[in-house]
Amino acid sequence: MPLRSDWSADHCPISRSLEVLGDPWVLVVLRETLLGLRRYDQLRDRLAIADNVLSRRLRDMVEAGLLERRPYRDGGRARHEYVPTQAAEDALPVLHSLVLWGEKHTVPPVDGGHLALVCEACGAESDTADTCSGCGARLRPAAVSWRRPWLTPASTLVVGAGTSAEAG
Amino acid sequence: MPLRSDWSADHCPISRSLEVLGDPWVLVVLRETLLGLRRYDQLRDRLAIADNVLSRRLRDMVEAGLLERRPYRDGGRARHEYVPTQAAEDALPVLHSLVLWGEKHTVPPVDGGHLALVCEACGAESDTADTCSGCGARLRPAAVSWRRPWLTPASTLVVGAGTSAEAG
Repeated sequence: MPLRSDWSADHCPISRSLEVLGDPWVLVVLRETLLGLRRYDQLRDRLAIADNVLSRRLRDMVEAGLLERRPYRDGGRARHEYVPTQAAEDALPVLHSLVLWGEKHTVPPVDGGHLALVCEACGAESDTADTCSGCGARLRPAAVSWRRPWLTPASTLVVGAGTSAEAG
Repeated sequence: MPLRSDWSADHCPISRSLEVLGDPWVLVVLRETLLGLRRYDQLRDRLAIADNVLSRRLRDMVEAGLLERRPYRDGGRARHEYVPTQAAEDALPVLHSLVLWGEKHTVPPVDGGHLALVCEACGAESDTADTCSGCGARLRPAAVSWRRPWLTPASTLVVGAGTSAEAG
């Protein structure tokens, strides 16, 4: 049920990107996988998402090259986890710029919702999306943590395709 | 016809931002208004968008505080143009990060489609979204131009809420 034409061959790279990243569910699945959630049940529980919606997004994201489906064993059962690719890691500035815009232009719930992007190199909270406003380091996976006090007192390292942070 | 629940009171600023910016049409209207298109006919022609779709997005974007509706006179007729607000200007890094992702991970048409983000301070093409990778200047409106050779040989200054660049 497309509400617009296909933009994947548009001249503008924004339009082409939106053909892949222009879906809110894709961006929040990207957020969680880059922060270390890999398994279907973890994603479903964190996102409060319907099974059919999540299954379809995971399938689309694998097809689009954002996630890689890897087998693992859960006790005796064969299951799959979803590992972000380089293309997913390269979308981190999209997420960071949405963090910064939301911090400035939307209202958090009364019990708080400030998300701090913390540079691992210098410890500063960055107010820019892809290079730390404190020291200029690139805010790539393994170089930036997110402080999300409504979820956990500790910061969560953006792990990207690295080892799962929260999969334990 | 919501396909998901309302995220405007979510703890995560990404989710809250997506409630406003998570629509591909909103982002391309934002792109054109920040680059100086202000008038309904200009937007409709550039975006090849249906009237009902454009009208609704403009109304939503005014309501969300991204655009301001301002009267102007066209000969004897009273019309309105749509001027981006500070909130729209602050979304520029979202657009820039989509440019950079699309340049790296999507395929332009055979007749070309490279979009260069050119820093007005140092003339470098930036490969980062909100601070110039050449000189570190913030890539705000009036400080960055977009080179879009498929539209025009000249670069287009991002004007933000300033004077229209292409409205002539």
